[in-house]
Amino acid sequence: MKDIKVIGFDADDTLWMCEPIFRNAEKEMAAMLSPWIDEDILLERILADHVANIPMYGYGIKGYILSIVETVLDLGKGEVPHEVLNKIIAIGKRMLNEPVSLLKDVEQVLPKLKGKYKLVVATKGDLLDQQRKLNASGLSQYFDEVEIMSDKKPENYRRMFNRLNIKPSEFVMVGNSLKSDILPVIELGAYGVHIPYHITWAHEMVESVDRYHPGFREIEHLDELIDMLEIE
Amino acid sequence: MKDIKVIGFDADDTLWMCEPIFRNAEKEMAAMLSPWIDEDILLERILADHVANIPMYGYGIKGYILSIVETVLDLGKGEVPHEVLNKIIAIGKRMLNEPVSLLKDVEQVLPKLKGKYKLVVATKGDLLDQQRKLNASGLSQYFDEVEIMSDKKPENYRRMFNRLNIKPSEFVMVGNSLKSDILPVIELGAYGVHIPYHITWAHEMVESVDRYHPGFREIEHLDELIDMLEIE
Repeated sequence: MKDIKVIGFDADDTLWMCEPIFRNAEKEMAAMLSPWIDEDILLERILADHVANIPMYGYGIKGYILSIVETVLDLGKGEVPHEVLNKIIAIGKRMLNEPVSLLKDVEQVLPKLKGKYKLVVATKGDLLDQQRKLNASGLSQYFDEVEIMSDKKPENYRRMFNRLNIKPSEFVMVGNSLKSDILPVIELGAYGVHIPYHITWAHEMVESVDRYHPGFREIEHLDELIDMLEIE
Repeated sequence: MKDIKVIGFDADDTLWMCEPIFRNAEKEMAAMLSPWIDEDILLERILADHVANIPMYGYGIKGYILSIVETVLDLGKGEVPHEVLNKIIAIGKRMLNEPVSLLKDVEQVLPKLKGKYKLVVATKGDLLDQQRKLNASGLSQYFDEVEIMSDKKPENYRRMFNRLNIKPSEFVMVGNSLKSDILPVIELGAYGVHIPYHITWAHEMVESVDRYHPGFREIEHLDELIDMLEIE
């Protein structure tokens, strides 16, 4: 990691808390729907239908809620009252207004990196919602660029490297998802610093990563990134 | 228009047909819902609720459909059957897969401009859906950059000028919406070339534009843009 010019940060569950908001919403909906739909079946189908709808809806809360309405209409056999459907829509709106909770170390680490590297937020999800969260986070002052990507495949990162006019070896991506933040960038010859979060969405799970890959790093707390950049 | 370096193109109803897809979907939904909801009341409330939800949902089909589900649940007094709600969701999915119909002159004009100017698509809406349409349109080869904006206010354009490293006087925006494509850019000192489309979404209507503003231009067909850039 000698020639790093740009550090990319994933946002959801790397800079701020996200996944628990989804899991709590699902628990609330499952309780609300329990008179009509078995909780385990509901949660399983919410995941399956959401993932099946991603090619069409993309990532983010709006597609998630639309997908859940579809799931509930399908499992509810016409019996779920309209006011319960309305509550699902209201939960979606609440999620879109959820206050932003920064994760540990973020506010300490970013000021130390600013000026030394170009800092980029690289996240997928709804454009407007991610912009809202970045503004609400108070972190936008630290970032030179914001990349809201429709997906985090190698070709999406390759396009970002072109736009930033850098070689892969000059880029390090920091994030909680092996699948989205680490594997695609180390495949391209960049560095990926994995910082696990205590909950990972099932869709982001990958079987494994080659922990001896020359681009792979893992840290437990974000402040370890500073030493890692200086020492290596 | 002497020093133009970058031409921005709106996409929906400037490069390809869009608004009729929304209007046809609404006609279809109104017919389907007519046993429970009066058509005129429904169409009025679809517009009002959609506009009210934009600060939260942003632009695009997913927020539009979520908003309509809410409207129908509210107006339907609990009586609209689940299969009709399901059809609304299915109409949204169909809209997200609608083939892209290019508007007149687009395929002739873009190759003439390519290489002479930096060409940018500047559009609002769902990130994934706009990327899908650009790919499906076959036009991505002509564009140097794609800006998918959460809104088209002066500050959004100002940020784009900064990123492109240009002065407003070096930019011309071409689009069908006075409100989104023309007024904000001429306010900043750039040029706005208005090319009206036969249907305009009520939310995009503005009372008037100062037709003598030095940045304002209007053309009927896109091919007039070539002469306008060469002569002025």
